[in-house]
Parts: sequence; structure tokens; C-alpha cells
Amino acid sequence: MTTVVPEVVLAELTDALPPRRVLTDPDTVRSYLHDEAEWAPYGDAIAVVRPESTAEVAAVVGVCARYRVPIVPRGAGTGLSGGANAVAGCVVLSTERMTEIREINAAERLAVVQPGVVNDVLRAAAAEQGLWYPPDPASAPWSTIGGNVATNAGGLCCVKYGVTRDYVLALEIVTAAGEVLRIGRRTAKGVAGYDLVGLMVGSEGTLGIITEVTVKLRPLRTTQPRTVVGFFATLAAAGDAVSRVTAAGLQPAAFELIDRFCLQAVNAWKHAGLPDESAALLLAQTDLPEPAAAQEADAILAEFTAAGATEAMQSTDPVEAEALFDARRLAYPALEQLGQAMLTEDVCLPRQRLAEMIERIVAIGQQRDVQIATVAHAGDGNLHPLLLTPHGDDDARRRAQAAFDDIVSAAIELGGTVTGEHGVGLLKMPGMARELGEGVLAMQRAVKQALDPHNILNPGKVVA
Amino acid sequence: MTTVVPEVVLAELTDALPPRRVLTDPDTVRSYLHDEAEWAPYGDAIAVVRPESTAEVAAVVGVCARYRVPIVPRGAGTGLSGGANAVAGCVVLSTERMTEIREINAAERLAVVQPGVVNDVLRAAAAEQGLWYPPDPASAPWSTIGGNVATNAGGLCCVKYGVTRDYVLALEIVTAAGEVLRIGRRTAKGVAGYDLVGLMVGSEGTLGIITEVTVKLRPLRTTQPRTVVGFFATLAAAGDAVSRVTAAGLQPAAFELIDRFCLQAVNAWKHAGLPDESAALLLAQTDLPEPAAAQEADAILAEFTAAGATEAMQSTDPVEAEALFDARRLAYPALEQLGQAMLTEDVCLPRQRLAEMIERIVAIGQQRDVQIATVAHAGDGNLHPLLLTPHGDDDARRRAQAAFDDIVSAAIELGGTVTGEHGVGLLKMPGMARELGEGVLAMQRAVKQALDPHNILNPGKVVA
Repeated sequence: MTTVVPEVVLAELTDALPPRRVLTDPDTVRSYLHDEAEWAPYGDAIAVVRPESTAEVAAVVGVCARYRVPIVPRGAGTGLSGGANAVAGCVVLSTERMTEIREINAAERLAVVQPGVVNDVLRAAAAEQGLWYPPDPASAPWSTIGGNVATNAGGLCCVKYGVTRDYVLALEIVTAAGEVLRIGRRTAKGVAGYDLVGLMVGSEGTLGIITEVTVKLRPLRTTQPRTVVGFFATLAAAGDAVSRVTAAGLQPAAFELIDRFCLQAVNAWKHAGLPDESAALLLAQTDLPEPAAAQEADAILAEFTAAGATEAMQSTDPVEAEALFDARRLAYPALEQLGQAMLTEDVCLPRQRLAEMIERIVAIGQQRDVQIATVAHAGDGNLHPLLLTPHGDDDARRRAQAAFDDIVSAAIELGGTVTGEHGVGLLKMPGMARELGEGVLAMQRAVKQALDPHNILNPGKVVA
Repeated sequence: MTTVVPEVVLAELTDALPPRRVLTDPDTVRSYLHDEAEWAPYGDAIAVVRPESTAEVAAVVGVCARYRVPIVPRGAGTGLSGGANAVAGCVVLSTERMTEIREINAAERLAVVQPGVVNDVLRAAAAEQGLWYPPDPASAPWSTIGGNVATNAGGLCCVKYGVTRDYVLALEIVTAAGEVLRIGRRTAKGVAGYDLVGLMVGSEGTLGIITEVTVKLRPLRTTQPRTVVGFFATLAAAGDAVSRVTAAGLQPAAFELIDRFCLQAVNAWKHAGLPDESAALLLAQTDLPEPAAAQEADAILAEFTAAGATEAMQSTDPVEAEALFDARRLAYPALEQLGQAMLTEDVCLPRQRLAEMIERIVAIGQQRDVQIATVAHAGDGNLHPLLLTPHGDDDARRRAQAAFDDIVSAAIELGGTVTGEHGVGLLKMPGMARELGEGVLAMQRAVKQALDPHNILNPGKVVA
């Protein structure tokens, strides 16, 4: 790649595309060089391209393939693992202008969209036709369906309704060779060949560029959810409550944990007046039809109490319940208001090990002298410890990175995974290698090599 | 492979394994040479091996890899596409003795089993702990979890609860090189690397040999299901009713179609006294908690009536309802009692095209002069036209094969897939090639080549 003259590539890209697709202004390009992962490295790009159609994406890949120039695809850049970070000499391909909703079909319960459609925009469009797109990452107001598919994004609903992979029926992709292919199907079921769609979901742009997404939809929920709130004196007690709810066969439609630090940050930012005295708050929501919802809410409440909740109640006020879930969604930006750098963890544990893992995280924070705030998709065992450090404090930063590694090690030791929903990107590559082991890594690399033999698609990410 | 001396391979296999694992008696071997796909070709095997452990499977693959001898893995042999059929000079690897249930874990809602565990056996074991394994192919009393995973088996429940792929969390596999690998996870979520588990599910033994399966379980259902029965004067009217129920946002937990011919066959065999005057019967079941179930049943009934049902009713008698679902499950063996050869179709259509596809099938049967009985997982758009021909009637057989091809063509033309749940095996290879097109086939082959470079795992199946 060292022999490529960027000017030649730029000229070819400009020739191959309609006007105003290729951006080279340094300030503009700079704003596309990385996602929201703190401290993940990134290089400089020779250009940012913003195609509007599949044919334009294919044209970009065609040029880049010819010159073996790396392509880094990117949605809204809300990733937290560095998956969308530029690599030196690359072309950043932003899907932000591919925002067409092509079909919402109630009879087939599916939607067809370009990859740049924002998650919440799709959800709203589906709702207009009585349909529901469940995957709801906290980034839903900004993140795109293409990015969600590339990272197999999760969210609050997945504890009952599954992650992005569970909703992707078909994809149109541009391969590493610049070929446009349609994989998957529009039917409810299908087993014609290997599951290439499932392979593409979560591959973080390393196996192909997604140019159209067909997702399954559900009928819109019509029930009024019931929310159960529990306050716990320790994070570990809250973890125990989660294990108990699962073991009791209960199926909340959202099941979240917020620690005191996050609640305080939301209160400080939004003057929300949330109860922030307890170490941790659990929020469980049931969406069964009544009276089953009331029974499930009672059963959840009983498990909270059995796990030693200092207080537990059903929230009968929907406004109050929504305020609590908003606090969960706002935890990340609220912590950002503190003006500190934030390293986001994403370990996912077997639910029985949740309390133990939380205790380990607390201990790691003390030992490494790092402030750790925690939110969690508790029902999934998916923890997001947020490691905070003052900007410019190099020593604090080193301590936070050490704590990050300790948390990864603990998760692996307890039978968990290093990333539940954020993706591998750059930050989780070492952890993934330890989690999977050499044999499975070799299998991953064989797949990458088969589908991107010249390693031009987001090189150096996921499998390197 | 032509230079391999079978005796050398047999000697090595016998050396590598404990006693009584290698079977070579011709009569015994013959009983392992094919699955239940009528008219799919099969070759002779040099031996059948019945390993009992992962290490034994790895030993078999090691020997076969060294001599480049094809390995055809096999569960119970209930497949309907020829996927388990022997290829000339192969070793058939039967998992029938790998029947250990290793773990059923209520707190994690998962089970870990060897591949030879029978589907219904797992379901019963899970139920003992208040848990439910949903995928329920009609072969559930005989077929194995390993075979279900290899084919991504469906069943009656998948209309609401998903197919086998939706339940597989982790696999232990033996690779084409004889290496034992663990892929996937025990956590609710995880995105560490490409979805190799999803890739393996439905790969019909062509990418690796499954030696252990970890499946997700659900809490056991405690509701008493309600059944709605509708009788229709034409198959197409029944197809229309299915589209209406879906478009109305209803979510039956089973939604099946049985035509008159199947009902008559079950009556003739079991003296079941089922109502067999109408062209088609639709059976829908709701498992919501009451009173939501009653409301959903009423809504389904209203759609049946709107679609022109000659009669529609809620079955208030659980015994009667169960008898109707038994008729659905017994359709296949009941037709076998007629003493005819039966070619089983498995096309899956967009639900809006169901009525049209059913009309096409009726027309194809008339045009080709072939008796076609039809059962369907109607709610999924998954049709199983069963093509019946007298044994030994070569002309009838040719007509049936032509009708089979016509049905495949019609399904592709209407935007469907050639196989909804039975798999590609041998019978659907031509259809799959037409459905996917050359570009996607090449992508499939690249994956196969990457993971089985010497083409020893079930060669000639799925992607050839």
C-alpha cells in the first residue's frame, strides 16, 4: 500500500462518483476519523466519501480494491470500541446520506432501509403502521441501522426480544471485490445455504459493506408496561436479585441496573430528583397483558425483597417510571458532563456470576484507584462499568487502562465474554484473542481471508 | 481419493477407537446409507463409526483427514433432503451413541447436550426443571439435537418462538483438520468475533462435526392454549386467511394447515374421525395469558370468517384440539401408510404470496398428473406439498420429479426460498443455485473452502 499515490486514488474516486461525494478538507476529514471509543488509536484518511446509492458504494470499493486502499465504513460514529476508527491511508466511507426507508410492510412484518437510516427514525416509521422494531441501543436517537447491524447492537429490549441479529432477514452488500450481492431472504424461515447474513451481522465492516438492510418487525405493543423498582445497599445484592428473577422463570421486557454514581450524575445534570441514596437501583418492566403483568410484577418484587432490597415497589405512575428509564438512557451523557474521559466496558456474564463480577469490579476500582460508575443491562448479564479519569492526567489514564484489562480478565475467568454488544473494534481485540483462543481465532481469520483476501475492508479490526 | 486402500483406513480407525465403534457388516452399513429423502442418490460407505465422545470423533476425523476420506455425519437419519446420504468411499459418522445430557441449568436457562440426544428427550428433561426447548420438528420423537442443529430444523412452534438457530448458544466442533474447538458462549449476549455458531447451524455437516450443543431454554409455558379451527372450501382461501391473521398483528404460537387428503389419510390410518370434508383445515393456537388469549382467539376467528371460512370455531375441548394437532404431526406417517413413494417439498413463501403459491401447486399437480397432499406451517409461509407416486411406476416418478421442479420454480418466482427448514442436502442443490445466483454461491463456496480446504466433510452436499 505504500506505493499508492493518494492523488491518483482521489482522482479516480472523484471521477467515479457524482459531485460532492468526496471530502478532503482536513478539518472535515478530521471529524470522521474516530468513533466514541476513548483512547482507541486512529490514523489519517486520504478522504471521506459519502455515497448515496449502492452503485456509488460499489464504485468506491472498486477503486479502492484496484489500488488496495483500505476502506473504513462508518455509520453515525457512535461506536464505543474503535471499530469505525480510520486506519492510515484509508478512505472513510460514511453511510450518512443513505437514509431512504424503502418499504415498511405490515403483511410481511418487515422493513427495507438504506444503512444510514437512524434507529429511532425506523422505529417511528414502523410504529406509524402498527409495527415495532425492538433493538434499542442507548444510541438509538443517533446511531444508524447499518452501524447497528455491523456491531450487532443490543439495547434495553433485548433481554426479552433479542438483539439486532435476531431481526436481520436480508442484506444487500458490496463485497471486497466491489460486487453487489443480496444475501438472506424475505420469508419467515429459510435454510438455503450457509447463514451469510448472520455472518455479516456483527462483522464490523470487515467482510463487506452493507448497502441495504431488511429487518423483521413485530406488532406494536399495546400493553401499558408495569415497572418494578428496587433499591439495594450493595451492587452485589442487586446482582443477586437479577439471578433470582431469571431463575424464577420471569421474563421482564427490560431489566436494568444503575448505580448511585450514575444516578447522581443524572440528577446533577438534569435536576431529575431521582432517589440516589442507595448503592444500586434495579428497574424491571413487564409488558404482559393484564392481569398477567400484575402477577409478574408482584413476582419480581418478591424476588427483589428476597435478595435484600432495602426498598422495592411497583411504580404505578407511568411518568415516574419513564423518568427512571430515561435516567438509564441518560447515564452516559450525564457522566460526560462531569468533564472526564470515560472508558466504557461491555463485559457480559453468565447471570449466576453477576453478583460476583460486580464485586470484582468494585475491588478493581479500589485497587487501581479508578472511579467506576456502572450501568447494566442486568437481565442479560451485560455490564457497562464506566471508567472515569480527569482529562490530561496520564497516570490516572494508565490506572484506568489497567482496570479495563483487569475487568476483561475477570469476565473471562468467570465464563463471560469481553463484549456483550459494543463490538470488538480495536479496544477488545486483545481480550477477544484471550477469550477465544488460537484455534477459534484461526477459524475467524480463515473466514476473513476467504471473503476479503486483500484485507482492504476495515483492516486491523476484529481479526488482525 | 481413488488411491486410498479402504483396509488401511479401516485398520487405522479400529486402532484409534475403543472396540465396537467401527461397523463394516454390509447389512448393517446399508441401513446407514441414506436418510428419508426419496430418490436422493447415495453411495456405498467403507464403514460406519459410532463414536461416544468428542475425542473419538476427533480420532475419526484425524484418520479420515490423513487419507482424505470423506466423512458423512449423521444423526437419526430423519432428514428429507439427502443431507446425510453416504457418498462413495466415505465413512459414515453416526452420533447415535452420544446421548448424554450434560447440564440443564435453570439459572442460566440453558442446556448442554451431546449431539445424539433426541429432541423430545431434551424437551422432557428441560420440562422437569420448569424449562422449555421450543424447536419441535415433526420428527421430534426420533430426530437428534445434532441433526436439528445441522439442518437448522424448524417445527410448529417457530411461527412465534423461532427455529433451532435462535436457540443455539455454543457448539463444540471437530474441524476438518480434526481439531476440537469451542465456539459461541454461555452468556445471553456476545459479539466477540464473527458468528461462527450461526454459520455452523444449518451447514449440514459440511463445515465441521458437532460434538456438543449448548442451547438456550425458555421458562415452561403454564398457560392452557386456546385453539381456533377453520374449514375452507379451497386451499387458496385458507392461504388468504393466513395472510390476514399476520397482517392483523396476531401472533399465534402455532399456525398449521392440513389439506383434505392428509386428513383422510389420518382418518384411514388411525380411525380418528376427523372432519375431512373441506379442502383445507387451519389450526391456530394462542398461548397468551387469559383473557388476552380469548381476545386473540376471537380475533383469529374473525379473520378466518372474513377470509370465507365455511366454518370456524374455537375448540374449547383440549382433547379435541390436541387430536387436531396430532393429525398435523401424523400426516406424514399416515400418508406413508398408503404405500406410495413420497417426495417432500419444503418451499417457504412471503406470507402475502401464500394463497397464490397454493393455487400454483394445485395447478402443477393437475398439469403433471401427480397426487399432491399438502401440510404447512402456514403462519411461516412454509409449505410441505407431498408428492405421492405408486412404487415402481417410473413414469409417475418422472412426473413427480417434474412437479417438484415446477414447485421450486414457482417459489423462486414468487420471492420465496426453496427450503424453509429441511435443508439443501442433495435434493435442493439445483434449486438453491437458482435462488442464490452465482455471486452468492461463490461466497458460500469461499466459506466452505476456508473451513474444509480438502473437502472431506460431507462433500458434494449444499455447496458442491
